[in-house]
Amino acid sequence: MFDTAELDRKVSKEDYAEKAPLLRQELLETQIILKEAPFPVIVLFGGVDGAGKSETINLLHEWLDPRWLIARAYGKPTEEAAQRPSFWRFWRDLPPHGRIGFFLSAWYSDPILNRVHNKTSDAEFDEELDQILNFEKGLTDDRVLIVKFWMHLGRDAQKERFQQLEEDPLTSWRVKEKDWENWEKYDDFTEATERAITKTSRGQAPWHIVEGADERYRTLSVAGTLLERIKRHTQQLAASSEEASPEKAKVELSSDLSYNPTPEITILSQLDMTLNLPKPEYSERLEELQGRLNQLSRQAQEAGVSTVIAFEGWDAAGKGGAIRRIIPGLDSRLSQVIPITAPSAEEFSYHYLWRFWRHIPMAGRVTIFDRSWYGRVLVERVEGYATEEEWMRAYAEINDFEAQLVSNRTVVCKFWMNITKEEQGDRFERRKKLPHKKWKLTEEDWRNREKWDAYEAAVNEMIERTSTFRARWTLVEANNKRFARIKVLETICDGLEKELAKSEA
Amino acid sequence: MFDTAELDRKVSKEDYAEKAPLLRQELLETQIILKEAPFPVIVLFGGVDGAGKSETINLLHEWLDPRWLIARAYGKPTEEAAQRPSFWRFWRDLPPHGRIGFFLSAWYSDPILNRVHNKTSDAEFDEELDQILNFEKGLTDDRVLIVKFWMHLGRDAQKERFQQLEEDPLTSWRVKEKDWENWEKYDDFTEATERAITKTSRGQAPWHIVEGADERYRTLSVAGTLLERIKRHTQQLAASSEEASPEKAKVELSSDLSYNPTPEITILSQLDMTLNLPKPEYSERLEELQGRLNQLSRQAQEAGVSTVIAFEGWDAAGKGGAIRRIIPGLDSRLSQVIPITAPSAEEFSYHYLWRFWRHIPMAGRVTIFDRSWYGRVLVERVEGYATEEEWMRAYAEINDFEAQLVSNRTVVCKFWMNITKEEQGDRFERRKKLPHKKWKLTEEDWRNREKWDAYEAAVNEMIERTSTFRARWTLVEANNKRFARIKVLETICDGLEKELAKSEA
Repeated sequence: MFDTAELDRKVSKEDYAEKAPLLRQELLETQIILKEAPFPVIVLFGGVDGAGKSETINLLHEWLDPRWLIARAYGKPTEEAAQRPSFWRFWRDLPPHGRIGFFLSAWYSDPILNRVHNKTSDAEFDEELDQILNFEKGLTDDRVLIVKFWMHLGRDAQKERFQQLEEDPLTSWRVKEKDWENWEKYDDFTEATERAITKTSRGQAPWHIVEGADERYRTLSVAGTLLERIKRHTQQLAASSEEASPEKAKVELSSDLSYNPTPEITILSQLDMTLNLPKPEYSERLEELQGRLNQLSRQAQEAGVSTVIAFEGWDAAGKGGAIRRIIPGLDSRLSQVIPITAPSAEEFSYHYLWRFWRHIPMAGRVTIFDRSWYGRVLVERVEGYATEEEWMRAYAEINDFEAQLVSNRTVVCKFWMNITKEEQGDRFERRKKLPHKKWKLTEEDWRNREKWDAYEAAVNEMIERTSTFRARWTLVEANNKRFARIKVLETICDGLEKELAKSEA
Repeated sequence: MFDTAELDRKVSKEDYAEKAPLLRQELLETQIILKEAPFPVIVLFGGVDGAGKSETINLLHEWLDPRWLIARAYGKPTEEAAQRPSFWRFWRDLPPHGRIGFFLSAWYSDPILNRVHNKTSDAEFDEELDQILNFEKGLTDDRVLIVKFWMHLGRDAQKERFQQLEEDPLTSWRVKEKDWENWEKYDDFTEATERAITKTSRGQAPWHIVEGADERYRTLSVAGTLLERIKRHTQQLAASSEEASPEKAKVELSSDLSYNPTPEITILSQLDMTLNLPKPEYSERLEELQGRLNQLSRQAQEAGVSTVIAFEGWDAAGKGGAIRRIIPGLDSRLSQVIPITAPSAEEFSYHYLWRFWRHIPMAGRVTIFDRSWYGRVLVERVEGYATEEEWMRAYAEINDFEAQLVSNRTVVCKFWMNITKEEQGDRFERRKKLPHKKWKLTEEDWRNREKWDAYEAAVNEMIERTSTFRARWTLVEANNKRFARIKVLETICDGLEKELAKSEA
């Protein structure tokens, strides 16, 4: 989930000097319109310590007209609050219509920390997240706009940041012993956070994950997103309000400033696409891994551990080839490959997940999906077959679907087969020339290629929202087919081994 | 919650003979239109054994064209299903577009029974209900229409029904030892059910509670509701679909048949409005109860147990008088009365619950609300100040709000002060004549009186949906003021006593 926020994205001084004043101006103008709007804005900042939560709130106070702003941070409940239900203090502090309230961690703080410090169980944690969902849903149903930012720093980046702060006598007071203690629990914290974000990104209040290391980047990112969300919300309300005259509904949405100041940096752009594996080494490892898989899959069958493998990737990225290298490692009576194409008329008359549920393996068996339910947030999104509302809620639906698999002792492996655009071009050309591969190349492949950037943005968001602790994405550098196949086989074997170790323990 | 389904509602043979054929015809016609519709209908029957779940499904199979129907009942999972996530078999059985699927208990069965038999904890039960919510939300988001009926029988009615079945040699096989065992657990069953219904009535798939004792009544009630829900859904989809031509959107909604075949029987109509208390007895008991309240409220203060009392009722039903009889029993430093009128401009710029949250008492204190958050589902509903969508979701919001209070050790007492329309007329006339009471009577009171039936329907639904195990409504027969005041005081004292006993234990 946070892989996409550890890409070391930066904004240069010049870039910032050009964009920031425009953004600031537009935000200020929007705030003036907002003053008369029939809803308040709640901006919630959660995240890792040191990722710039309070700095960003302070900066937005400088940028905006502070008379219409509220900012709230929460420590231990006061006596007033401790004696009332835990949400009382948040209800008390809600901003009225027309104002923006900035909330620091707020209702997310205690549930996450209590889980990290094992004061609550998973079920109790879920219960608390549920209350949060109800609380936020009550507000958004009442037209409140909730914008939630999760400010992220990688484990090492956080350490660095703390050391920086400690070295400067002016800021050293900000790093407390407790911060280092929490840093030690970085992984627990990430796991709890991921669960919280996954569960509370439903509905009208999704989280925006922001890479917090570079101040200029995070500022433009937060301010741009906030601006866009306010404009969209105003527009949507106007559109849905029957009283609104048609002109009123036309609040302009387009902004010159994309809310992602560095759209060219995605998780895919960070892969080392030169990775390679020489032939002799490949043959050796392939045989070894197929043997290992054979053994593991038999153990899995006995232990009742199922496996679901999903392949996604660029056209011609080698999904089929990789699948063919898995098959020899499996007992064909206990495994099946399901190729996913456009839904049939029958499938189309069901929920889009229905056709995948049908093929969920029985205990101990394996299903390999050649393309998968992720079509919803990839091709259906890019080609407009699904509405924005449909693919937006699909992330939560998919996480929920996979969580059900995982808690039913299923190993879930998800592969994104990645090749560069150049490599794809070469492969297309080669296919054109080979009679036995020509059929594989269709008009559609060329059309998809033209939408490369749109697909890349969709892949990036898909990984951000669905790579979870329970069901992680594996990004496969597949310019070299041998390297890719080995990585796939190894990942499956490791996943099985881990799950089987759990069963034994 | 089930009080409103124990009113002994019946439909006469003549009435049934007149209405049933029309309803049947209209259902059949609707089914034909439905065949081309872009959504399936899921009709789920839950409820008490013997309340007519399967009889109703059978009858609807006779009424409708069975070629487009599916019916599913679930026992223990088959080997096929047991080896997959628990929702797999429900996904498998979903009806495609255009068809109606009848599901018997289905995904509600195991979670409720496991809770009743203590195989799961409250938190685990909530977790399972949560999964149900996600499952249903996924479907309704995809336009599936879900209609859920809870067929109810009171404890005694269920016993009677079992005995009837046992006496008839043709049906005696239907009553198993297990049924009697479950009957012994009637209260546990009701509590778990209530929690399930409260939690899963959110969103687009609300429960309809049907009194199951009279076959004709339940048939008309279920068939009528089903017809209305299908028509509404078709209409809403047509209205929201942009492609739909304006004519298409005009699916007629009005049906001659109200889905409640006996609207004149409400929970209020069952109260014994002649209840009375003679003056000498009243004075004695009043003094005694005020003393008891005094003692209890001091104990509550020490124990940190808070009290929230909400008064609703007809105009001139004696809310103020009842409140004045409570006050002497309380320490005025620790209690406050909050009169609720139309929201101020300030209050109006917040969520409607905000102004009630503000007055939640600190630990050990008491707040009395003279009218309350229930205005949302009463006056705001009847007068159209809230949209249907707003007041429909308010039931869940209110249950959630009160659950937070209760789990924070707050005694929640909710009183509906009930008088007959005649009594109200008399009181209005008397007020007109008394100079010091004349101010109490406004134009609005007369206008409200004209909408008596609409209010009565709203009150009935309010009680059905918000009288929960944790926060039960007390209906006060208030034609006699002395009787009413004593009942109110007694209820508060009992509530405090019960909560304090819990604290000691």
